[in-house]
Parts: sequence; C-alpha cells; structure tokens
Amino acid sequence: MSDTQSQSTSKGTWVTYRPEIKVLDCTIRDGGLMNDHRFEDGFVKAIYDCCVAAGVDYMEFGYKADQKIYSRDKFGDWKFCVEDDVRRIVGDNPTELKLTMMADAERTDYHHDILPCEASVFDVVRVATYVHQIPTAIAMIQDATDKGYETTVNIMAASTVQENDLDDALAALAATPVGTIYLVDSFGAMYSEEIQYLTRKYQRAVEGTNIEIGIHTHNNLQLAYANTVEAIVLGVNRLDATVAGLGRGAGNCPLELLLGFLKNPKYHLRPVLECLETAIPRLRTQMKWGYDLAYMITGQLNCHPRDAMKYMEVDEPGSIVAFYDQMLEGTS
Amino acid sequence: MSDTQSQSTSKGTWVTYRPEIKVLDCTIRDGGLMNDHRFEDGFVKAIYDCCVAAGVDYMEFGYKADQKIYSRDKFGDWKFCVEDDVRRIVGDNPTELKLTMMADAERTDYHHDILPCEASVFDVVRVATYVHQIPTAIAMIQDATDKGYETTVNIMAASTVQENDLDDALAALAATPVGTIYLVDSFGAMYSEEIQYLTRKYQRAVEGTNIEIGIHTHNNLQLAYANTVEAIVLGVNRLDATVAGLGRGAGNCPLELLLGFLKNPKYHLRPVLECLETAIPRLRTQMKWGYDLAYMITGQLNCHPRDAMKYMEVDEPGSIVAFYDQMLEGTS
Repeated sequence: MSDTQSQSTSKGTWVTYRPEIKVLDCTIRDGGLMNDHRFEDGFVKAIYDCCVAAGVDYMEFGYKADQKIYSRDKFGDWKFCVEDDVRRIVGDNPTELKLTMMADAERTDYHHDILPCEASVFDVVRVATYVHQIPTAIAMIQDATDKGYETTVNIMAASTVQENDLDDALAALAATPVGTIYLVDSFGAMYSEEIQYLTRKYQRAVEGTNIEIGIHTHNNLQLAYANTVEAIVLGVNRLDATVAGLGRGAGNCPLELLLGFLKNPKYHLRPVLECLETAIPRLRTQMKWGYDLAYMITGQLNCHPRDAMKYMEVDEPGSIVAFYDQMLEGTS
Repeated sequence: MSDTQSQSTSKGTWVTYRPEIKVLDCTIRDGGLMNDHRFEDGFVKAIYDCCVAAGVDYMEFGYKADQKIYSRDKFGDWKFCVEDDVRRIVGDNPTELKLTMMADAERTDYHHDILPCEASVFDVVRVATYVHQIPTAIAMIQDATDKGYETTVNIMAASTVQENDLDDALAALAATPVGTIYLVDSFGAMYSEEIQYLTRKYQRAVEGTNIEIGIHTHNNLQLAYANTVEAIVLGVNRLDATVAGLGRGAGNCPLELLLGFLKNPKYHLRPVLECLETAIPRLRTQMKWGYDLAYMITGQLNCHPRDAMKYMEVDEPGSIVAFYDQMLEGTS
C-alpha cells in the first residue's frame, strides 16, 4: 500500500483510491446456480442496466456449458450463454461494461462454442477449474487468448486443496497468458488470516508477470464482504460481487456493500439501490438465497454447501440441530 | 500472537486456543433496544439456559436505568434490571455464568440502585459512556468497584470521537480500577483497518495495567463478526455477541458464528442452535432486526442508526433510494 494513489490505512484519510481496482458483477452467473439459470429477461436486463449505471467494469451472464452434457430443456439460457440470447438483452453492448462468460473445465466445448472474440458479444472468458483439471484449464486459457479474449481463471474449492497441489497449479497458471487468477472461497469457509495467507501465496506466484489476482467469496460465515475488503487491503485488484449478494447458497459479496467501500468516483451506489428496490423483491418471492444457519454450518465445516442447499430448498426446513448433528456425522 | 497457547495464524493448525478469551452474551440487553426491553420471561430464560449450556462466560440482562428518568410503564423489566426480576429468571444463579448489568452514565442512579455485590445477583457492572461523560463514568467505576463488582466500560460511538478526546478518555480510564475497556462500534461503521488502528490504540493505553480490551460490534456492513475476529487476532480477549445477532438495528456479532470460530472446548455451539430453533422464530414474528439496506446506509455514512430504525419500523418500508437520498441530504 505504498502507492500514493492507494487507499491509506485509516478511513479518516480515505481521500484517494486505487485506479487498478475493477469490479465484476456475477449476479446472473452465481445466482443462476440457485434456479438452474432460469432468469426472466427483465431481471437480466435490470442487472445489466444497473452495472452500466453503477460503473461496474465487468458483468458475467453465466456459463458456456456444453449442450451435449447439459440439456437446454433442463436449464435456462444462462447456463449456455448463446450469443443470440445475450444480444437479446444487450444488443451489441454499446457500453463500457465488459461481458464475461464462465467456462467450466471439462464441461465446455470451448473449441466449438466459444467464437472468435471479434464475432462475439463477450469480452472475457473466465475459466473455472478444480486443481486436478489444470491442464484442461490451461488449454482453454490458450484457446481463448488465441481467439482474442481477455482471460481469467478461478481455482475452485481452494480451501480444501493440498498446499503443494495449489503451489503447482499456481506455478503452471503463472506461465500462461491468463490475465487474472482468482482466489475463490467456494465454501465460504475462509477467515481473514487464510485470505491473507492465500492472497500472498497467489501474489508471490505471479511476481514478475502482468497477471492480476482476483477474489471471489461466499457469505456462509458473513465474511464475503469482509474477506473482499481484506483482499483489497492486500493489493488484490479484481473483485467479484453480486447485487443483493445473490449467489449459490449463502451468496456472494454484496455489490452494494462493495461500492459503498470503494472510493473511485466512477462507481455509483444509487443505481444499485434502484435495482435492489425494483428488481430484487420479486425475485425473493421466487427463490431463497443468503446467509442462513445451514450455510453457516457447512462453512464452519469447510464443506460444499450442497447439503445445506438441499436442507433449505423446502418451504419449511426441518430442525437445524438435526442438520448440524447430521453434518457432524458426515465429517467423522 | 507469540503466546504458544494462542491460535496460530493458519486455520489448518488451529489446534490451540487462547484461554484468556471470554464471551459475553448481550442478547437481552442490546436486543432490548428494539422492543423497549419487553421480553417475555420464557425468552429471557431460554437465553440464560443457552448461555449456561454453551459455556458463555457472561450474560447481560439489560440496563439499570434510573426510574426517576424512565417510566416503568413505558419500558419492560430489562430496562431496570431490578434484582427480584432477574431472580425470577435465574434464582440465585447457581452456575458459572456471570451476570452483568449495563449502567449508562448520567442515566443511572448508581448510588441508590446498584446494591453491594454480595447482596446482588449481578457480578459485573458495565458502565456505558460517551466520551464527554468520562468523569461520571469514572465515578461509577469506582462506586461499583467499592461495592465488590467486576467492572467494564464501553466508550460509545468511538467512530465519531475526535482522536485527542479519545486519547484523553483512554488515559483517564487506564488509571481506574476498571477490568475491561471496550472498543464499541456503535454505528457499525468500522472496517478492519479501523478496528486494527483503534484496538492497538486501546491496547497501548492500558499497557502496564491489568486492564483487558473488549470488542462490541454492530452488523450494519456485515462486518460485526469479521471485526470481532479481527480483534481476536490482535489479542482482544473480551468479546460481545448475541444469539441470532439480536440487537439494535442491524444487530451484533452472532454468538453462533463466534462460538463456531473459538476453539476452547468449554464453548458449545449446539445449545445455541437449539435456542435458535426453539426461541428465535417466535421472536421474529414480533420484532425485526438484522442487516438490511437502511442500516447499511447509516453504517456507510458513519451515523446513528436511528433514522434507519425509523424507516424500518413500519410493515412496508418506503423507497430505499429515497431513504438514501434523504440521508445524503442530512450529511451535507
């Protein structure tokens, strides 16, 4: 934080900001994990308009999933992000907002489905990979780079990866043309000290390259925003957030909290509040997300939220004590 | 964190804990600010039983407010914490749990209303003071000490106090027999860097004394738990929390998150989950608390949540954008 353009270490003198910081909204993509990517066009458009007005840098629409693996009948449009579907919302996207797709390693027919960038409405390919899929992820990064895209890579479930495997993965990714490597707290299980430890590890891995580090958090322990701020303080410049924290399970870092923290005058909170007022209440009648005890429990146990999601999906979830007991059984 | 009994800096090796850490539950006291301290006896008893079973160290019932200032008709029992009312819940409190009352500077007839400790069911007097009331607070600390109580002091609204005034207050309090000085984020406006800055200031102020530092947070920015963890990492040993985060406005650090973090085997999460399952749902039909956009806005603006509480108190709060616009007007 020695850069004079950086935020100082005391709020009272936060009169400067770090212009390298960029915000990515992944409301539709991560939120889509809660409704099989079936958002109404009006909602997607509301998020898009919000991002443009709020000065957000990137917006992620969803996955570029392989239609040979996933049925279009079973999932909504934003599982596949077909160009025409996106253009139905954004036209040719005549804005500063860059559009991103997420491409899962081994679940994306990237050779075929990802067009050359100049033929696409998308600007960025975000590769998502588990640590054992790194070779595929690297091939996908190379392919997207060759096609003219900015690229990023999310190493998923980092809180359960063996440290030497993570080190190997980072070393391999640091040698690619990827633009950003994301620290991802898939299970919402990380505390500030782990964010510190891993952020510094990721930063060391990319020293001497132009690769940025990003952060993607989940709110199981009410730490999604706190951990994002922690990462900012450590020098992380690429930040994921979602409107109302919409995202899988306990959700993500809320965009409204993040934009309230960032001091760059390009960011505006008011359009996010407008979106929260006009678009979110109706969605809350259709789906349920955000911090809740079941997600807290899976976060505390550092495990995938799938059991909590199953517990929460009924209208009247059962005993939380019984869920806790069951989860403890599951980890013994 | 050089103490070998301290938590290490990586979660993977958190096999130790800091035995000096003590947890105070202030569910009834801080929650009472949302319902004029009118809790049913069954709820107060449920929190008491929860604290005992969970291994919590202290439980705060409410205020020892002056009945010449506050009418017993207008407020519930826990505004006054008359001995007989507390004994109706806890008998003679034949447990390890210590009971605390909060005594507001200038709003407590402490000479008259606070009995000698041996005649009281209470163990601790927690003096709450604004920085301009420090002389009164010191007199109250001395009075309570002379009567045989453990004492603590909360300097309220620390995020809006001028730094030289805060330094003077800390120096004056460090010369008293007080047991703990609490860093209090009354407005839920502090970020981790401010917690660091102020915690270190408080710690320096008590160097060479036996005074402990405590932390009391609010959740306006979803940082109540994160800031409590931050303080723990810095060496703070006295922690306030509440069941379900119940407390004024956005509420406090949730006890269930905190006990999931602390590794001392004396603490048990399961009784808190039981309490959350049996006692909290009914309360949620009677009162509304916890993180919400209006509280976020007052937190971001570092101001008292009273405007947000007023906005939230109706069944159908109005436009959040209008509330935001109004609050910005108010700070210009």
